[in-house]
Amino acid sequence: MEPVLLYDTTLRDGTQGENVNFSAEEKIKIARKLDDMGIHYIEGGWPGSNPRDRRFFELARDIRFKNARLAAFGSTRRPGIRPEEDSNLKELVRSDTPVVTIFGKTWDLHVRIMNNTPAENLAMIEESVAYLKGKDREVIYDAEHFFDGYKDNPDYALETLWAAHRGGADMLVLCDTNGGTLPFELTAVFREVREAFSRENIRFGIHTHDDSGMAVANTVEAVHLGAAMVQGTINGYGERCGNADLTAVIPILKLKMDRDCIRDEDLKKLRRVSRFVSETANIVPLNSRPFVGRSAFAHKGGIHVSAVMKEPRAYEHIDPVRVGNDRHVLVSDLAGKSNVEFKARELGVELGGNGCNSRQIVTAIKEMEQEGYQFDAAEGSFRILLEKLTEQYEPTFDLEAFRVTIEKDKDLPCTAHATVKVSVEGREEITAAEGSGPVSALDNALRKALHSFYPDLDEMHLVDFKVRVIDGRAGTAAKVRVLIETRDPDHIWSTIGVSEDIIEASWQALADSFQYKLAKDRGNGFRSKDCRMEVHQAV
Amino acid sequence: MEPVLLYDTTLRDGTQGENVNFSAEEKIKIARKLDDMGIHYIEGGWPGSNPRDRRFFELARDIRFKNARLAAFGSTRRPGIRPEEDSNLKELVRSDTPVVTIFGKTWDLHVRIMNNTPAENLAMIEESVAYLKGKDREVIYDAEHFFDGYKDNPDYALETLWAAHRGGADMLVLCDTNGGTLPFELTAVFREVREAFSRENIRFGIHTHDDSGMAVANTVEAVHLGAAMVQGTINGYGERCGNADLTAVIPILKLKMDRDCIRDEDLKKLRRVSRFVSETANIVPLNSRPFVGRSAFAHKGGIHVSAVMKEPRAYEHIDPVRVGNDRHVLVSDLAGKSNVEFKARELGVELGGNGCNSRQIVTAIKEMEQEGYQFDAAEGSFRILLEKLTEQYEPTFDLEAFRVTIEKDKDLPCTAHATVKVSVEGREEITAAEGSGPVSALDNALRKALHSFYPDLDEMHLVDFKVRVIDGRAGTAAKVRVLIETRDPDHIWSTIGVSEDIIEASWQALADSFQYKLAKDRGNGFRSKDCRMEVHQAV
Repeated sequence: MEPVLLYDTTLRDGTQGENVNFSAEEKIKIARKLDDMGIHYIEGGWPGSNPRDRRFFELARDIRFKNARLAAFGSTRRPGIRPEEDSNLKELVRSDTPVVTIFGKTWDLHVRIMNNTPAENLAMIEESVAYLKGKDREVIYDAEHFFDGYKDNPDYALETLWAAHRGGADMLVLCDTNGGTLPFELTAVFREVREAFSRENIRFGIHTHDDSGMAVANTVEAVHLGAAMVQGTINGYGERCGNADLTAVIPILKLKMDRDCIRDEDLKKLRRVSRFVSETANIVPLNSRPFVGRSAFAHKGGIHVSAVMKEPRAYEHIDPVRVGNDRHVLVSDLAGKSNVEFKARELGVELGGNGCNSRQIVTAIKEMEQEGYQFDAAEGSFRILLEKLTEQYEPTFDLEAFRVTIEKDKDLPCTAHATVKVSVEGREEITAAEGSGPVSALDNALRKALHSFYPDLDEMHLVDFKVRVIDGRAGTAAKVRVLIETRDPDHIWSTIGVSEDIIEASWQALADSFQYKLAKDRGNGFRSKDCRMEVHQAV
Repeated sequence: MEPVLLYDTTLRDGTQGENVNFSAEEKIKIARKLDDMGIHYIEGGWPGSNPRDRRFFELARDIRFKNARLAAFGSTRRPGIRPEEDSNLKELVRSDTPVVTIFGKTWDLHVRIMNNTPAENLAMIEESVAYLKGKDREVIYDAEHFFDGYKDNPDYALETLWAAHRGGADMLVLCDTNGGTLPFELTAVFREVREAFSRENIRFGIHTHDDSGMAVANTVEAVHLGAAMVQGTINGYGERCGNADLTAVIPILKLKMDRDCIRDEDLKKLRRVSRFVSETANIVPLNSRPFVGRSAFAHKGGIHVSAVMKEPRAYEHIDPVRVGNDRHVLVSDLAGKSNVEFKARELGVELGGNGCNSRQIVTAIKEMEQEGYQFDAAEGSFRILLEKLTEQYEPTFDLEAFRVTIEKDKDLPCTAHATVKVSVEGREEITAAEGSGPVSALDNALRKALHSFYPDLDEMHLVDFKVRVIDGRAGTAAKVRVLIETRDPDHIWSTIGVSEDIIEASWQALADSFQYKLAKDRGNGFRSKDCRMEVHQAV
């Protein structure tokens, strides 16, 4: 059977999702990951709609993708002009991508809303496709609102497809733009369309939205009926309820329908790519996400671990390893001797030196996780913890004391200042600093105190700061977890602190971050790779 | 056509989900909401498995539900004993519910794993069902792992159904326990089962899990093929990737398949029930959730609002009002004159007194939302804001000043203390207090300072405290949003603060909470209802 072509639109339709924003540079990074995983088409953006997407295509020009063909997205020409006069189409050509995807109107209702005529709409479709084919592009035609349009006026909907076909489109993609179509409705429509074009050698694609919770089901059903291309996004990001989630579609095609689409070893990258995209978008990954979520293969109390081990298929619909995920049988991701040993190797820490064995380490980690620590999101602190437990920890500075004061008078804004006293190899340093809040003041004061010892700290800066109240029901006395992510020119690392006192929790995460940076610069046992990503691979 | 029976298992299977925990009292509250919405069956728990569920059934005994029949859940008897000797079955009878649901093994692989024989398993099913029927219960039989079992050994899978049927089961529910079944596979199996039982008058139900992202699709497909009952949970909460989400299943049945299940006016409660369950579970509601999510009917920039208004069906797959949701065309949920006016009426605040009209209020809200405020989650602060804008605000106390100090020495724990000076009607009071963190110290000091003026403050306590870093990329100088929820014997309310300084943000939320409580006790314009819930209705 023909392979199913994977078309990713995370960088275009995905960014219509709430809080999904990428810079041009971030888009390039994501495109590289998608290419590396073997995605066939990457839709980079709509160059006619905004300068950021134009910049993306400029940057992309210098990149040789191994697997993927890059697509620029846009609409058919405007009414009443020739294609070569249309600025949007010209912009698409200027983007210089091997593939161009254009969408056109299927539903006569929309044609009327735009004050256009049905005939002119057909001309717009045919001429725009033909114009781009004349520029030697592979042209993918997205039939917007296809299923709604077909339900309302099947004849006209089919005419729009014929127009794209006459224009020379390489692929006709049926879109459920409003996301309202149910699988059995899609089945009926798809069969009729296939029938109408049965004498032509036409390939169909599918593009769905999740407004009825059916995006993945509709996509899979379309492939079952013969669709040659699936369009979707990583993590299903997209407008309203999102697009078809490729992190579910791909393993279903590959593992459950036995359809050729990506290689086995690339499928194992799925969870990592999912995490990379959510990290880049700065969106908390959904634990319950099928296939790639942290809880997707979690087994709760009742089931005997050995039974799962003996007969995994009795409890798991697929082997989690195939999508780069893990069985999650215990309280903690990191619990388990072999996991800890694996992780220590990853991080370059030697275990067993002081007689502290992996089992004792697992116990210590479990206790800390009970208190609210989560080391799978804080490999910087995890490395320090491993060193402490194995008595290999050599702090680069010691805290003598700090004082933070926040003052407020009437309606004036708060002010915050901190005093920090540290010692480095017996020499003490005390400094004070202000900040835009107590943690910022503490950060500034610590930086200032360490500066005379470690001038390289200038190149390190915090890139993310997250606060989570662990059990809000305890009110203001609840425990707080602080996660900090820090970057320097070569690395990115994350650290954690937990306390009922938010300042203490922040201090722990800050101090670990500084310790990690300074130990790293000394060079002991560190690998040159981006450690954050390693963690997602390991856990 | 027969109505589709809605069977909710949020209180049992839903609590298998990560972080989904309810007390017996919370379960009662949720059961009342489900009953009020017209759900036909409510599965309250597994009384044989834990004391909390037993307590739930004790509490439930005194409640007369308007629409719902209560179900207790358990397993078939243990091998080798008679049903009347089985403690689990006895516990089910003791629960005194009109309905009992028991599950049994379909898949011979599982029978072998449990070291049981296929014949004894059949006897367990038949005898357990018959025993419960003999106790005059409606008996629903959940065929665990049905689809996987059927794929492996269809004959044995059917035999287990026959056993339940012989026992007298009122409903045979086919379960996709591992969540690995695709809709077209389900279709084939369901048809064969229907065929096998075509001479009997048997009703089938469906119970699905979302491990392949297919839970809702499979449920809908089963109804399409004739299933008489759907089992699912509110918000799809459940083990691993969750169960079939009733907040999607119900509107699909009702609005898209035109199947009788709940009344139109009850369907409008859907979003509120969804929010109530997520609030009670203390889980952030998913904005992208189909039908009930905040973004489910959001329209981004490109589309002209007037076009949506003129032809909603061109852009929306259903009318959001039918499920109690809203079109979301603007930046803010609260933007829009009519919304603000509606909300002010809800909260008992009169607008227009000082010439500040609704339009100006909308502008002020939008500006604050730009800064990071989110009033849909903080109606206490919203009420105060409305009063301030309309010059009706009468503070019950004024802050003169506070000082918060956090101290840490070496490895000792942090200590935090706060000094607060307030004035009430010209009289000043200054106090100090410690706390388990700076916010807790501030809370304690404020409470102490106000105590001599307002002794009723004792009955108020904080029940939730949430901190969100608004844009973590600014590191420790990022803006922070604090949400506080407070309760007294009659009410629950929530307040908000936003600042780069976490202490100041916490102070704003704390101060608003105290102000709200004290103004409420004075009685001006307040309604006696739970205001938090009112907000979910209004927004």
